[in-house]
Amino acid sequence: MRETRKADELRPISIDTSFNRYAEGCALITFGHTRVLCTASMEEKQAPFLRGTDKGWVTAEYGMLPRATHTRGGREAARGKQGGRTVEIQRLIGRSLRAVVDLDLLGPRSISIDCDVLQADGGTRTAAITGSWVAMRIAVNKLLADGIIENDPIHDQLAAVSCGFVNDTALLDLQYSEDSQAAMDANFIMTPSGGVIEVQATAEDKPLHWDQFMALKKLADKGVQELANLQMQAVADA
Amino acid sequence: MRETRKADELRPISIDTSFNRYAEGCALITFGHTRVLCTASMEEKQAPFLRGTDKGWVTAEYGMLPRATHTRGGREAARGKQGGRTVEIQRLIGRSLRAVVDLDLLGPRSISIDCDVLQADGGTRTAAITGSWVAMRIAVNKLLADGIIENDPIHDQLAAVSCGFVNDTALLDLQYSEDSQAAMDANFIMTPSGGVIEVQATAEDKPLHWDQFMALKKLADKGVQELANLQMQAVADA
Amino acid sequence: MRETRKADELRPISIDTSFNRYAEGCALITFGHTRVLCTASMEEKQAPFLRGTDKGWVTAEYGMLPRATHTRGGREAARGKQGGRTVEIQRLIGRSLRAVVDLDLLGPRSISIDCDVLQADGGTRTAAITGSWVAMRIAVNKLLADGIIENDPIHDQLAAVSCGFVNDTALLDLQYSEDSQAAMDANFIMTPSGGVIEVQATAEDKPLHWDQFMALKKLADKGVQELANLQMQAVADA
Amino acid sequence: MRETRKADELRPISIDTSFNRYAEGCALITFGHTRVLCTASMEEKQAPFLRGTDKGWVTAEYGMLPRATHTRGGREAARGKQGGRTVEIQRLIGRSLRAVVDLDLLGPRSISIDCDVLQADGGTRTAAITGSWVAMRIAVNKLLADGIIENDPIHDQLAAVSCGFVNDTALLDLQYSEDSQAAMDANFIMTPSGGVIEVQATAEDKPLHWDQFMALKKLADKGVQELANLQMQAVADA
Amino acid sequence: MRETRKADELRPISIDTSFNRYAEGCALITFGHTRVLCTASMEEKQAPFLRGTDKGWVTAEYGMLPRATHTRGGREAARGKQGGRTVEIQRLIGRSLRAVVDLDLLGPRSISIDCDVLQADGGTRTAAITGSWVAMRIAVNKLLADGIIENDPIHDQLAAVSCGFVNDTALLDLQYSEDSQAAMDANFIMTPSGGVIEVQATAEDKPLHWDQFMALKKLADKGVQELANLQMQAVADA
Amino acid sequence: MRETRKADELRPISIDTSFNRYAEGCALITFGHTRVLCTASMEEKQAPFLRGTDKGWVTAEYGMLPRATHTRGGREAARGKQGGRTVEIQRLIGRSLRAVVDLDLLGPRSISIDCDVLQADGGTRTAAITGSWVAMRIAVNKLLADGIIENDPIHDQLAAVSCGFVNDTALLDLQYSEDSQAAMDANFIMTPSGGVIEVQATAEDKPLHWDQFMALKKLADKGVQELANLQMQAVADA
Repeated sequence: MRETRKADELRPISIDTSFNRYAEGCALITFGHTRVLCTASMEEKQAPFLRGTDKGWVTAEYGMLPRATHTRGGREAARGKQGGRTVEIQRLIGRSLRAVVDLDLLGPRSISIDCDVLQADGGTRTAAITGSWVAMRIAVNKLLADGIIENDPIHDQLAAVSCGFVNDTALLDLQYSEDSQAAMDANFIMTPSGGVIEVQATAEDKPLHWDQFMALKKLADKGVQELANLQMQAVADA
Repeated sequence: MRETRKADELRPISIDTSFNRYAEGCALITFGHTRVLCTASMEEKQAPFLRGTDKGWVTAEYGMLPRATHTRGGREAARGKQGGRTVEIQRLIGRSLRAVVDLDLLGPRSISIDCDVLQADGGTRTAAITGSWVAMRIAVNKLLADGIIENDPIHDQLAAVSCGFVNDTALLDLQYSEDSQAAMDANFIMTPSGGVIEVQATAEDKPLHWDQFMALKKLADKGVQELANLQMQAVADA
Repeated sequence: MRETRKADELRPISIDTSFNRYAEGCALITFGHTRVLCTASMEEKQAPFLRGTDKGWVTAEYGMLPRATHTRGGREAARGKQGGRTVEIQRLIGRSLRAVVDLDLLGPRSISIDCDVLQADGGTRTAAITGSWVAMRIAVNKLLADGIIENDPIHDQLAAVSCGFVNDTALLDLQYSEDSQAAMDANFIMTPSGGVIEVQATAEDKPLHWDQFMALKKLADKGVQELANLQMQAVADA
Repeated sequence: MRETRKADELRPISIDTSFNRYAEGCALITFGHTRVLCTASMEEKQAPFLRGTDKGWVTAEYGMLPRATHTRGGREAARGKQGGRTVEIQRLIGRSLRAVVDLDLLGPRSISIDCDVLQADGGTRTAAITGSWVAMRIAVNKLLADGIIENDPIHDQLAAVSCGFVNDTALLDLQYSEDSQAAMDANFIMTPSGGVIEVQATAEDKPLHWDQFMALKKLADKGVQELANLQMQAVADA
Repeated sequence: MRETRKADELRPISIDTSFNRYAEGCALITFGHTRVLCTASMEEKQAPFLRGTDKGWVTAEYGMLPRATHTRGGREAARGKQGGRTVEIQRLIGRSLRAVVDLDLLGPRSISIDCDVLQADGGTRTAAITGSWVAMRIAVNKLLADGIIENDPIHDQLAAVSCGFVNDTALLDLQYSEDSQAAMDANFIMTPSGGVIEVQATAEDKPLHWDQFMALKKLADKGVQELANLQMQAVADA
Repeated sequence: MRETRKADELRPISIDTSFNRYAEGCALITFGHTRVLCTASMEEKQAPFLRGTDKGWVTAEYGMLPRATHTRGGREAARGKQGGRTVEIQRLIGRSLRAVVDLDLLGPRSISIDCDVLQADGGTRTAAITGSWVAMRIAVNKLLADGIIENDPIHDQLAAVSCGFVNDTALLDLQYSEDSQAAMDANFIMTPSGGVIEVQATAEDKPLHWDQFMALKKLADKGVQELANLQMQAVADA
């Protein structure tokens, strides 16, 4: 449980865009002890279902190292299948990013986002989404700088943050010890100007009141705003 | 696109609780041309991770017959894996139902919900959740009637409905032709008294305004209320 | 065990050709409490191994809803593979149907049959085959009516029925309580004029005499004749 | 196509019971160029579904080496799944053998039959079944000789042979060049005294007359009788 | 443990090149009780990653019959995946053979080697490699004889043998009873003239001295020389 | 290709033992641009095949992030199986570590090593093995410090390095640009005192001379010595 951190305060955030030297875009993002390596790989080939069009695609995969967590979890590659949680999260990441990309302007190419959780202390999906936008932004900037595409296909910025009710208090950016006790857990994926990309709120144990949901929304507005500023700075410094 | 149906009007709903003679609870539910067979199977055994406790569990699986849709889709059993959409939906169904069940009162047994889409015209997940509650309610009523459990573990009712923005209009209970054009698609899982179980809203193509989301919420309140009444009637007639 | 039904009497049979509004051909067939949804999907593409020819193909898949049976069985899609019984049955359905279709006359297209058991009380494979012929007949009639093909590729009719020895009595159309006690279980797939498509007879526990097999054959002739009449009526009414 | 062999004549048959030095029972059986290695492994453990009883079980697995055939086929282990034909055949072998074994007398142990096709020229399933009985007989004889069981659980002998109509002629024991042209292909698994274990007859392309089926049955009686004599000799020599 | 065999003596070796009548090259090789069937299949198609070049490829697969061993092991095809040991061995076989083949001279075709262990008493991988070279040599000789290729793509010969330290003695060609006790197990794949293709040495339980490794190397030189002579004789007799 | 680095010089090596805060032992090891995260997880449960004994086990898993490499590779978890190279490497890591651990002294517990390649520029397996020993050493030191075990089960130290012949020059610690051109690639896993744990040498394209292999061995002695010093320092600083 947070000790000195205030209810509406993010954990310490850092974004390192130089961790991986091969990817076209990279962001090693930390939300407190949560650490996710996001890479964006540009590939000059289309997704199979887009053949015959001039459109591009953005897709994402998510994974967690077995010992990212307090106790070791299984390795999905060894088990031979991705778990339901993994599938759910990677679909969410891809869907969210596509909502701020003009796939026609991207042209007949693909952006593959990989989000790999190196250490997990709650909020891995929101860190992953926030970092992925940075990695994608850097990779697309290279395309523009190299003259491969002319018009910027990214038409908006997005960041994600979780909020939840713990002991009747609305908290921003839950760490694991909070998340595991939350009566409601919500993830907000929004633009700096307040636009909604995706909202997912889930009550645990029993239904909650709508005004509780609205209290979380208010926290998210603040969190997303702060994350968006840090993203812009990381991109500028890259 | 809806022709005579109003923007805030549900499709014709029917709930048949006698379609399957073996399941402890059953609801063949239709939302217009969408038809989902929901069964609740009581099993006197615990989920493996609950061994050593006195708690029960509610789990759900979702499937779609290959020709439920306008054109034939593949059979997941033949492909050897459930798709990401399937996994996402069945996790949602199970999570939602557990939010209205006291797992301690249920005792060391399991309720397995199966939702199989026989025909699909949009809204299969909301029909599945709405029907599953009916099937579960009937199955638990039998446990109570047979004296196997004493106190009702179901502490609330829930129903689900989709809403979306199509051509700048907020519509209740999207059919497929609407869903495929919606700028925002939201699913609300709520109690008759307005409690929130789960909310999922997704913007397509570009971010939306928060007041658009709120307009959908208002439609959902109406839809869930009407569905809840039909559920109670179906349970009473079972 | 059958009570008022005679040894050479079929269970009540019904065939509903309107249950699914999207498939080119459909038959929801019931043999007593056994209920199988058969759909025929026409696809204007060839099976890969026929590329370079002008031939078509008929293929079938079979599945059973988890709670079709008295107690819940596992979901094959969730387990990640089709069981041996499923594979055996779907190969039988496809092979049988192809024996009455001229694949050259069908032309470069495919008929995909899906047989999904909604409720199971014995004889699911014979109900599936009998219903599949109806669904295929209706789908091909549409091709003919639409002028897509000129000559009817279906050169014969077929129906299937099970027979078995229970307590030294030869019985037609076994229900589950009989099937599970039968000393020999045989499935006959035949034409109304007595032609043999496929015969499978299996002794349980110990070998049987050939004249016992012949007694089952005689029952099958009667059953197939009656089923064939019901099929023709269903097609005429479609 | 057979040249000097008569229509009612088996191919040259050989049974070598010493090919594998480790298995409790072994038969390397050849039907002409078809060569199948059958081993019977006794295991002092029960099949899981028999726990709590005193019964045993007989199970079978079937495989084909990739280059057993004229052109190389894929390796099922590398593809990660057994094909439908493999599953069908191994279920048939196990079911047939169990029909001549008293599982109570076998006691709480298992016989695992492995049939691996080293070379294939038609009739691999009938060779496999005929050889498996020999391997099982030898393995059970050891159990009896070692006093591990007192009463012989094998209550009958069985052998299998294929028959078919090629160019309007009924032929016994089809080789591949015949099998691929047969208008009807039937497999008979019978006892030397004419008892029926399993009969499977399949028409290709179009239905056949019942008297054609009966002509095949007559050939099978002769073939099974001859195979049964060779089996007894092989067991005696083992 | 070897009784009359000397420390630097191979087990009795035999190579039968006529066991399989369909493969372009075949060697049923025995090292004592170890018996491996090696086939070489020529296929006039390129490996996918070589499309657009004129090069060929040599690939290998390895398998073990379930009852090749003292007690029955599982069937990889039934388990749905090849074990780690299998994967390791088949990669080794393919890699070794490619080291003596000029893939440009082979031209746009593939050689598929299948090594199936019919009986296993230690040394299956070295027997497999030694036999595979024979099968490949015979298959390529056919290509040359048929004028399909003009220049011999096989530029060297290779054979493989295992060595190990057991009770402080260096032994050539370990049988299973020795292999299971060896403090170091090494496999040498070499040419008759002493060239190195692949060396793998593994210490069990604790590190060994380099001079122990060198003692094994000396034994391997002798063993490979003898195997190479037997290979040439088998090819000459084929 | 190395520019200023000498033929017998390692790349810059670093070992960070604090990267992961949850694992019992951790080493983020870099060999130049190759970066592998090694964690050791202590689990108080036995491997299934050791039940009934007092022994422990050491096992390893290996993975590579999709964009660890110059171009993106597939994700094994998404493909549903680990590739042959992965399986080979993780078996090698586990086997090597077990050669320096007394499994009886370890007692009834397991050490799970995870090696995840964050960036790959050649030599990932040798970096993984070298780092794994550090992670394991730290984890076991904790067990000793906590009094969970009394006697140190690790009886020796090991490190690994690759060597190869490139353009007729023997090079130590190959980077990717060298590895891809090497005529022979060898991996040596040795103790600081020169003991041999595992040696694997593979010739590419054509056989090599034994004295070339010996030249690589000499380089490896130097490299392993240097790595061993860095390991001890990292453990001391942990």
